[in-house]
Amino acid sequence: MGDDFELDRDTAVTVAGEGRLAVGVASGWNIGDKPNGGYLVALVARAAATGMPHPDLLVASTHFLRPPEPGPAEVHVEPLRAGRSLATAAARLVQGGRTCLHMVATFGSLDGEGPTAVTIRPPDLPPPDQCDPGDPRLFAGRPMPFLDRLDTRWPPGGDGVVPGSAAGVAEVAAWTRMADGRPPDWLALLVHVDGLPPAVFNVGVSGWVPTLELTVHLRGRPAPGWLRARSRTRALVDGLLEEDAEVFDERGHLVAQSRQLARVLPQRDVSPRPGGPAPGRG
Amino acid sequence: MGDDFELDRDTAVTVAGEGRLAVGVASGWNIGDKPNGGYLVALVARAAATGMPHPDLLVASTHFLRPPEPGPAEVHVEPLRAGRSLATAAARLVQGGRTCLHMVATFGSLDGEGPTAVTIRPPDLPPPDQCDPGDPRLFAGRPMPFLDRLDTRWPPGGDGVVPGSAAGVAEVAAWTRMADGRPPDWLALLVHVDGLPPAVFNVGVSGWVPTLELTVHLRGRPAPGWLRARSRTRALVDGLLEEDAEVFDERGHLVAQSRQLARVLPQRDVSPRPGGPAPGRG
Repeated sequence: MGDDFELDRDTAVTVAGEGRLAVGVASGWNIGDKPNGGYLVALVARAAATGMPHPDLLVASTHFLRPPEPGPAEVHVEPLRAGRSLATAAARLVQGGRTCLHMVATFGSLDGEGPTAVTIRPPDLPPPDQCDPGDPRLFAGRPMPFLDRLDTRWPPGGDGVVPGSAAGVAEVAAWTRMADGRPPDWLALLVHVDGLPPAVFNVGVSGWVPTLELTVHLRGRPAPGWLRARSRTRALVDGLLEEDAEVFDERGHLVAQSRQLARVLPQRDVSPRPGGPAPGRG
Repeated sequence: MGDDFELDRDTAVTVAGEGRLAVGVASGWNIGDKPNGGYLVALVARAAATGMPHPDLLVASTHFLRPPEPGPAEVHVEPLRAGRSLATAAARLVQGGRTCLHMVATFGSLDGEGPTAVTIRPPDLPPPDQCDPGDPRLFAGRPMPFLDRLDTRWPPGGDGVVPGSAAGVAEVAAWTRMADGRPPDWLALLVHVDGLPPAVFNVGVSGWVPTLELTVHLRGRPAPGWLRARSRTRALVDGLLEEDAEVFDERGHLVAQSRQLARVLPQRDVSPRPGGPAPGRG
């Protein structure tokens, strides 16, 4: 993780003391005026990885307490256990004396041996060059710098609010990669699992869909190239919803899975706009 | 939560100090010589719920660091945020000065208003009285007191190692309830999401499948009566696997979802036994 790429620069950490790392919350990953959740997870996970005795992040579960503002912050890391094959730490993003999010992350190795049986399959998409860049109408009327960080290609067709998807079905899928050419790795996957618009936009939801909790499993090291991401919601109940995302690398290997619990908030000082729901994922 | 039922007695908490609750890890929920993970989650979540300003557990994410022994332990609870509609706390199970598991739990209300769109469906099972109690051969040769806590009814037929399921498919489903007649609630659901044998037993896995991390979403308050539980794994890769479980109440309403990351461990001082894999879920 050099500083040649946006994600690396925007998740850089500096040791500030025992178990304390100085970070900067960048504004370039905002959805509206709030940082994207996946970016915040990447920021904190990179800090948590500092000094870990095992190479691969296996699972990170994060509760979002309050959104931080762009600017300086700290990540406080507390090792919970360091064993022969697994190590776990708690990490919290602190700004102005308040905890903004709390993560527990377990590291290990993806080079382990054991049985393999896979039935999950990547979404069936035409090649990236036959797909379309995202439709800006989807987020009309609000600054969405996050969208400029990713190069996302949607399958042609579909009548859903989200490009290339079906109206009435809370499932979306697309090719994606970092816009600046950064090759995928676990840090990028933490962004990509939260990088598609909420799938519930296709079933009449608009407005903010902030995440309460997001757990990411890293399942493989991605090959260079495009990723395929899919996201769906099967139970939106009284405004609370789970959203499951899966990311596959260019070979079609599963490299990340995530599930989040989110809730639909009423519109805040914005009215629904023609062409799609307004703000997106906080 | 009185003390008329096993689960209530075995998750009882006593205030031991500021943010410290005395608990007892019961041996009656063991799989082999280790407590079932869902039982431990219930034990810690009940402690975390003490003093919470909101009635419903919405999401609990738990990292398992080391299994506790049956006997006295403490749960240390740290409030992270208490807001108008949500409150979050970290809770850790501590025994002999060592943290055995670390949970972060967010509470709120399941009476909120908002949009609803549900496509998830309960498993298609014959009525409970046409189903069979669990096959003890599945766990032959080890004490499995956990199995006596639950009344589980499997659909007839199937050629999988797990009763009523198909060989070669990592998906299992059954009716379930507490064996002592305790009505279901969120505390029981935390056990039921981890109450079926590992679905990967049907794809040739045997031995221990300990959980690294388990996140549970509570999605509704269950009606009295039977529950239907389903569990499946779509990606077992080099011994690491996700397992997704869903629990529906007698009306067919989704009441809990969970996902765990687990790993297949080689057999420890036991040989594979005829009739099925040996120990089960640690």
